[in-house]
Amino acid sequence: MIVSECPFCAIARGDGQASVVHADDAVIAFMAARPAVPGHVLVVPREHVSGLELLDEELGARMWAAAHRIARALRRSELRCAGVNLFLADGRAASQEVFHAHLHVLPRFADDGFRVEARWGAPERGELDTGAAAVRAGLAALAAEGG
Amino acid sequence: MIVSECPFCAIARGDGQASVVHADDAVIAFMAARPAVPGHVLVVPREHVSGLELLDEELGARMWAAAHRIARALRRSELRCAGVNLFLADGRAASQEVFHAHLHVLPRFADDGFRVEARWGAPERGELDTGAAAVRAGLAALAAEGG
Repeated sequence: MIVSECPFCAIARGDGQASVVHADDAVIAFMAARPAVPGHVLVVPREHVSGLELLDEELGARMWAAAHRIARALRRSELRCAGVNLFLADGRAASQEVFHAHLHVLPRFADDGFRVEARWGAPERGELDTGAAAVRAGLAALAAEGG
Repeated sequence: MIVSECPFCAIARGDGQASVVHADDAVIAFMAARPAVPGHVLVVPREHVSGLELLDEELGARMWAAAHRIARALRRSELRCAGVNLFLADGRAASQEVFHAHLHVLPRFADDGFRVEARWGAPERGELDTGAAAVRAGLAALAAEGG
């Protein structure tokens, strides 16, 4: 998708139809057009960034800060949610559909139909240690890149 | 749960068994004992904070920054994931099980069995605008508290 066709860039420019809940110099937050639950909000950077790899660390923190405040605001709103999920999908394999990074803020209600399914594991410590070593090696590789 | 019984506090103190991938003065990250996918990492603040309401904004940003780096590290690791999800559950209604705030970093793979189910809506603009007004009112209430 080229930037000019990106629906979130259109919203950030003010060209797309959106029900905005927050806007500042770095991020904009608006109601999801296809909500997973009523009150579902998306927080996006104004800058077109496809995902976490290219997202500036500081800009990511701004997205987080907005989502954190919105989550607390949802608890105070007349939506009267009983809980909140934050969710981000990075990459097609992780169910990302719009390739402009976005953080979902999902108010939760009893019997709202939202759930996560997974094949929960119970690995031995040795397997967890092997996984941890792999992640640490990835962090070292990232640091070596200066990233 | 009192703090002394909190499993994540035990890990942060060094008393709990954990396969640690990152530790600094503010946060610690380790492999989930019951992973939803292989390579599932949890990022927690060292401080015992139950959820988003009591989580300091700056400390939350530190959790996010660690999760962001770990997500990028997972893409570089020998786990060779095809995508990453970030997920946080705040409150029992949102499936929070351990009441010490934690951010999930979930490497994703083809056919890994992880999925989100929801009753996706397609509300009219008027309904979205009403929702946005409710969230903005919640944000105003939060600001009025000085929070």
